[in-house]
Amino acid sequence: MIPRYSRPEMTSIWEPQTRFRIWFEIEAYACEALAEIGVIPKESARNIWEKAKDVTFDVARIDEIERVTKHDVIAFLTHLAEFIGPDSRFVHQGMTSSDVLDTCLAVQLTRAADLLIADVDKLLAAIKKRALEHKFTPTIGRSHGIHAEPVTFGLKMAQAYAEFMRARERLAAARKEVATCAISGAVGTFANIDPRVEEYVAEKLGLVPEPVSTQVIPRDRHAAFFATLGVVASSVERLAIEVRHLQRTEVLEAEEYFSAGQKGSSAMPHKRNPVLTENLTGLARLVRGMAIPAMENVALWHERDISHSSVERMIGPDATVTLDFALARLANVIDNLLVYPENMQKNLDRLGGLVHSQRVLLALTQKGVSREDAYAFVQRNAMPVWRGEGEFRTLLGQDKDVSAKLSPAELDELFDLSYHFKHVDTIFRRVFGEG
Amino acid sequence: MIPRYSRPEMTSIWEPQTRFRIWFEIEAYACEALAEIGVIPKESARNIWEKAKDVTFDVARIDEIERVTKHDVIAFLTHLAEFIGPDSRFVHQGMTSSDVLDTCLAVQLTRAADLLIADVDKLLAAIKKRALEHKFTPTIGRSHGIHAEPVTFGLKMAQAYAEFMRARERLAAARKEVATCAISGAVGTFANIDPRVEEYVAEKLGLVPEPVSTQVIPRDRHAAFFATLGVVASSVERLAIEVRHLQRTEVLEAEEYFSAGQKGSSAMPHKRNPVLTENLTGLARLVRGMAIPAMENVALWHERDISHSSVERMIGPDATVTLDFALARLANVIDNLLVYPENMQKNLDRLGGLVHSQRVLLALTQKGVSREDAYAFVQRNAMPVWRGEGEFRTLLGQDKDVSAKLSPAELDELFDLSYHFKHVDTIFRRVFGEG
Amino acid sequence: MIPRYSRPEMTSIWEPQTRFRIWFEIEAYACEALAEIGVIPKESARNIWEKAKDVTFDVARIDEIERVTKHDVIAFLTHLAEFIGPDSRFVHQGMTSSDVLDTCLAVQLTRAADLLIADVDKLLAAIKKRALEHKFTPTIGRSHGIHAEPVTFGLKMAQAYAEFMRARERLAAARKEVATCAISGAVGTFANIDPRVEEYVAEKLGLVPEPVSTQVIPRDRHAAFFATLGVVASSVERLAIEVRHLQRTEVLEAEEYFSAGQKGSSAMPHKRNPVLTENLTGLARLVRGMAIPAMENVALWHERDISHSSVERMIGPDATVTLDFALARLANVIDNLLVYPENMQKNLDRLGGLVHSQRVLLALTQKGVSREDAYAFVQRNAMPVWRGEGEFRTLLGQDKDVSAKLSPAELDELFDLSYHFKHVDTIFRRVFGEG
Amino acid sequence: MIPRYSRPEMTSIWEPQTRFRIWFEIEAYACEALAEIGVIPKESARNIWEKAKDVTFDVARIDEIERVTKHDVIAFLTHLAEFIGPDSRFVHQGMTSSDVLDTCLAVQLTRAADLLIADVDKLLAAIKKRALEHKFTPTIGRSHGIHAEPVTFGLKMAQAYAEFMRARERLAAARKEVATCAISGAVGTFANIDPRVEEYVAEKLGLVPEPVSTQVIPRDRHAAFFATLGVVASSVERLAIEVRHLQRTEVLEAEEYFSAGQKGSSAMPHKRNPVLTENLTGLARLVRGMAIPAMENVALWHERDISHSSVERMIGPDATVTLDFALARLANVIDNLLVYPENMQKNLDRLGGLVHSQRVLLALTQKGVSREDAYAFVQRNAMPVWRGEGEFRTLLGQDKDVSAKLSPAELDELFDLSYHFKHVDTIFRRVFGEG
Repeated sequence: MIPRYSRPEMTSIWEPQTRFRIWFEIEAYACEALAEIGVIPKESARNIWEKAKDVTFDVARIDEIERVTKHDVIAFLTHLAEFIGPDSRFVHQGMTSSDVLDTCLAVQLTRAADLLIADVDKLLAAIKKRALEHKFTPTIGRSHGIHAEPVTFGLKMAQAYAEFMRARERLAAARKEVATCAISGAVGTFANIDPRVEEYVAEKLGLVPEPVSTQVIPRDRHAAFFATLGVVASSVERLAIEVRHLQRTEVLEAEEYFSAGQKGSSAMPHKRNPVLTENLTGLARLVRGMAIPAMENVALWHERDISHSSVERMIGPDATVTLDFALARLANVIDNLLVYPENMQKNLDRLGGLVHSQRVLLALTQKGVSREDAYAFVQRNAMPVWRGEGEFRTLLGQDKDVSAKLSPAELDELFDLSYHFKHVDTIFRRVFGEG
Repeated sequence: MIPRYSRPEMTSIWEPQTRFRIWFEIEAYACEALAEIGVIPKESARNIWEKAKDVTFDVARIDEIERVTKHDVIAFLTHLAEFIGPDSRFVHQGMTSSDVLDTCLAVQLTRAADLLIADVDKLLAAIKKRALEHKFTPTIGRSHGIHAEPVTFGLKMAQAYAEFMRARERLAAARKEVATCAISGAVGTFANIDPRVEEYVAEKLGLVPEPVSTQVIPRDRHAAFFATLGVVASSVERLAIEVRHLQRTEVLEAEEYFSAGQKGSSAMPHKRNPVLTENLTGLARLVRGMAIPAMENVALWHERDISHSSVERMIGPDATVTLDFALARLANVIDNLLVYPENMQKNLDRLGGLVHSQRVLLALTQKGVSREDAYAFVQRNAMPVWRGEGEFRTLLGQDKDVSAKLSPAELDELFDLSYHFKHVDTIFRRVFGEG
Repeated sequence: MIPRYSRPEMTSIWEPQTRFRIWFEIEAYACEALAEIGVIPKESARNIWEKAKDVTFDVARIDEIERVTKHDVIAFLTHLAEFIGPDSRFVHQGMTSSDVLDTCLAVQLTRAADLLIADVDKLLAAIKKRALEHKFTPTIGRSHGIHAEPVTFGLKMAQAYAEFMRARERLAAARKEVATCAISGAVGTFANIDPRVEEYVAEKLGLVPEPVSTQVIPRDRHAAFFATLGVVASSVERLAIEVRHLQRTEVLEAEEYFSAGQKGSSAMPHKRNPVLTENLTGLARLVRGMAIPAMENVALWHERDISHSSVERMIGPDATVTLDFALARLANVIDNLLVYPENMQKNLDRLGGLVHSQRVLLALTQKGVSREDAYAFVQRNAMPVWRGEGEFRTLLGQDKDVSAKLSPAELDELFDLSYHFKHVDTIFRRVFGEG
Repeated sequence: MIPRYSRPEMTSIWEPQTRFRIWFEIEAYACEALAEIGVIPKESARNIWEKAKDVTFDVARIDEIERVTKHDVIAFLTHLAEFIGPDSRFVHQGMTSSDVLDTCLAVQLTRAADLLIADVDKLLAAIKKRALEHKFTPTIGRSHGIHAEPVTFGLKMAQAYAEFMRARERLAAARKEVATCAISGAVGTFANIDPRVEEYVAEKLGLVPEPVSTQVIPRDRHAAFFATLGVVASSVERLAIEVRHLQRTEVLEAEEYFSAGQKGSSAMPHKRNPVLTENLTGLARLVRGMAIPAMENVALWHERDISHSSVERMIGPDATVTLDFALARLANVIDNLLVYPENMQKNLDRLGGLVHSQRVLLALTQKGVSREDAYAFVQRNAMPVWRGEGEFRTLLGQDKDVSAKLSPAELDELFDLSYHFKHVDTIFRRVFGEG
């Protein structure tokens, strides 16, 4: 997590102060539940809440205690006792550290997921805006980097929209994966704590009880969460790479917004580089790479070992903060993307009409030519055009086999661009719904 | 995909014959749809179906054609035309190779997912059987590999059951991710093919239409699919490692079934090694490793490049075949696991009662001792026991601070094992439901 | 390992027959050494070698035995005894299965490394040929996909040459990592076998003795090996992506060789797609992804567990066969690459002289203009050119601040292309050496 | 990079102040070289060095400038000019940002490598100390987690020593990979800067000139570097897992040092958990996971794109800081490891002599029994012992087939432990050298 690629709302989830606040709430709600079922005095539960609810925890002091105890939750509880006084003996009763740590992580990850989903929503809005704006802006569709047939820029955006709608669903599912609470004691048996406490705390924190925990919440949940982030990051990379391609000097169909004072290169003042989307490509690699350690975390030994902890201390913040930043940056790039329809048209025209070759091929087969022959007729006229020797429409008109089957008017009709866009409405309806 | 770790039902999904059969069905159904909407003669559509529906495709012949054309779908269509005759000119009309390839992959992956879900169901059944059998078999719960507090072997199984229930849900979601059909032409615009064809073929094959494809079905779907397989494989690893731990010489609470003629070691005839579960650990690493290339496949260039293809040719079979084998092997291991309750009891007793230390701690705090003091009282009696110097119950009875608060009868009660199992019923209800 | 991406020389290393032959040689050499030091009769050692040295092992028969014993080495030894007769009791004496398996793997991996190094040599030769051919072919250098300053196509090749020289060194180091022999018995103590046997067998097989083994050769060696393959594969990807970029329709500075009968697209007959290099991009992902399981294999339990085995059964062949294929394919692509210098020149001219902006900037500073001012002067003339509004040389001549410092002749000199190539010789000497 | 897993010497390499200092040195040395070859006045070069050599750069000010220019090197140069005055126009002449950035990274990574190598040296010293101390401390060797045959604790340490000697060599090779300097201008042609400048700066900074750069130093170098870190981290994990296994309650052959005030568990005061080595397991996962993004960084587009930058900003510090911390922690764990030889002996005796089964097997074959028969004789006596029904030596004495071949005295000799340690000296000589 480095400041350059971080946004405050997400980083604040991972700050010590936030963590201690959540820990306190878990402990305080647990006390409420314990009071409710008569294990501790109601007065004490109220007192615990009142005495600490407005406290700003002293992070340095807790760190200092931890240096002695080498145990973070004990350090926190010791500090908490300094505020609460004698009633502190009721705090954490029957619980184990992981009850606090894992439930806290659940709260943090669900909050992070909420922010990520909101990021995706903003990105979707930006994409949709550009999709509608360019619904019928013609541009060449490319496969293998080679001109294929016409599409519209709006269709490219629709594709991205559909992809991020899926990203949104995946994030919602990932959120659900980790939204569980465990207050089940040292080995998950509820030996010293009633299961109703877990149910109470879960509800208060917007979580559901973990059906069966060991000492910890099982890590397949977190693996699924981080793997999802890796998949979403890969979709970010995809759209970023599309922009990078479009901004290539030879293509120049779109450009990242370039602010006034910005310098593109220390050496070459004319350059306008797609640095934002290049950056997104790198960020995607980072988030993706974190999926593997998260999966390796699943196989903890027996009821638990603590090897997952250092991994999560790093990838918990890093993966969420980085993806949050990436999604926000991508939304911004798309929202402000400079789109050059005239360059798109120029590129479309570049191949001398070759993009219509498949239509000609089909028309020939419909006139009774075998597919094999039609392919050969088309290819022998396409190849010179490809080499820059002639124009496709003209050559076809001069080819005896072709002109025997297709009249000049028919040929002209086959070169009509709007032919390709007749189903754009259908696709838009599928992607964006009616209206 | 190597024979040793493969099962025929899954491998058959990936055999050329299966693939060509699916390709044929896609083409034939597309012809039906084209006939339906009047683009080609109904007679021809019927003919195409009739002439080829019982064909065993000549894989060697298709390979031979491909060596010339360097294009697999064209090679197949050429071969198909040999059976169908003149009507073959209507086949593949307005379609692009990827319409066939990607829809075929969707069919293969959904079939694979169905097998994997069935595997998980068998595994769940085996786990449940052992869970009910050992619902109240006491065993020590361990955190950090160190004895913690008592659990039951049934609880360990319940944990695994819940984990594979989640695996099942994830596989179902992953199946849904990839169950789409694209028949949208060279760049996804339906320029030369009516969207109704896609809808028709999708329905026939049990898929849904891809809302917007480019030339291909977007690869974030597949990334999500393979990432899920990686997560499920990690859960396989977890249960496998549990068995490996339990079979350690010093622990020996369970053992893999050892068949009559089997030899454990070429050198040491007494050895019975957990080779099946060790093998599963390795297989998990393999499946997990395939998630990364799948995610790298997402960012194809523009409307598509073909870099994903070689990756999928390998990980498509490898990941599904390996995970299928692993799940089946794990189900078998659990179903036949030799469980040794008497060894579990022996291990439980090993620490001279230290596993009850937390109960003593809590009892002291409930008698009004501060948590800090209670911790100190317990620890000073626990440490000698840990070093093998004395028995925990006895030492506690001799400790003045402790005996001032807890009577001998109260102390005895704190060492009662059944105390820990009072909520096993609750947990089983949560995991397995009522009855 | 799939036939499509395999070459016979590498796959043959991994065939059962090869493996059994190496196993036999290990056992037979070990017997020779045992005879030498007087543990078994010399006559028997000779006999063992003579009776089996020309045997084609019956793979099906060995598999059949393994199905009973569930142990591959025992199955092999049982089969071997069928040929050798009574002297077979001296075979494998004091050894453990892993002595055979791990030493065999060392032989296989070193043979594989030798092939990979030979592949790199062929690739280097192809690159060098093209580098010399195009040493001074001007082309635009691009950063961020944006035109920067002129380079030569030979320089691009020189860069690739230097990179694969490093790949060669890394492969040589990786070969050395795995070229060790262990014949040290069940836990590596040589309890039942003299260390001189290991030394003898190592020498015969072109390996060195493993200084200290457990039951197995330590897996950090193999992790380093496969990680190296991942790095080399990434270099393959880099050069492949360069070709893909150069073949883009809008760039078209180079093209993969396109054979006569080859079809680019089932739908679009004009297309010539960079499918070989796209394929290489995917293969690189696969090889790279195998580095992680190899690293996870390092932490075997105690003196060994067997979790590494299934991983190596898959990635041993897959990583080496795939990389061998990829290197050979890349050599072929480069060797036959169609290079279009005239298109390179066209692209170079595309930006109306903007590629010379940095030279103008420097010339201004050398005339005493501050860097900040010079940057501003250049940028205000570059921006219109970028937008297609004017030609850079002309605009600069009309700019008062610029023309106050630089005469028309001086400006002309700044637009001279050869200026950029004055150190090409130096770089070529660094990369290819003298002459 | 989080404080908890960081050490100041390594983190300081990555602080902005260090980076700016290195940037300054690169620029100042470049000016010296430019002065040397007569491009700029010697006076200016001296002035540049003098005016800024003692400056503490104002990080906040540079950040502020960067927010406008959106370019870090330009921001730095602007700030630097504030100190240097008019001569600043000679700074960075003919260079490109990456000349500074990449050469700086080379300096940082080589410094980091030096620290890592020093860490390994400390670890090696700790391992060697324990190896010599326990050279002949008997302990059971385990394969598959099952007791195999006796080894010594010193041998375990020797194995680790040899492994980290290899780690050391790999780190030295990795250091060499990245120790190059590029001062070659915008596209690596030295168009505006003499190659002698690069040679001069390289020498001053302890680097070698990059033979051919593009705009950047090629990233296969960095990929090899980070992949090496992943391999070394995996070796850390291996030794950490060995300790975790040894500390298991049932094994307890060794324990991490437990400081006075430390609390093992908030709930269970008796527990002493191997938390340091569990933590190392997690840290290894993190470092390993960073190898993949580093490899994905290799395939930059054309002469460069900047996607690698964000990756390196994160993994540069994270991988080196984490591995540095992990190596230091591991050295500390080994140095202070509590070793319990008496528990090792107890475990050795646990299997009633079964660990000698292979010796009996061999002795029988040497008496002329076929390997198959000998195996059967041994196994039928081993199995009851395994089930706890009898003692191996006794049963063998009562077995007719066995006693027909081996006298009681011969059998006794086969159960002698020292037999297994006769080659320990040989192995130690191989690993630690003479004396």
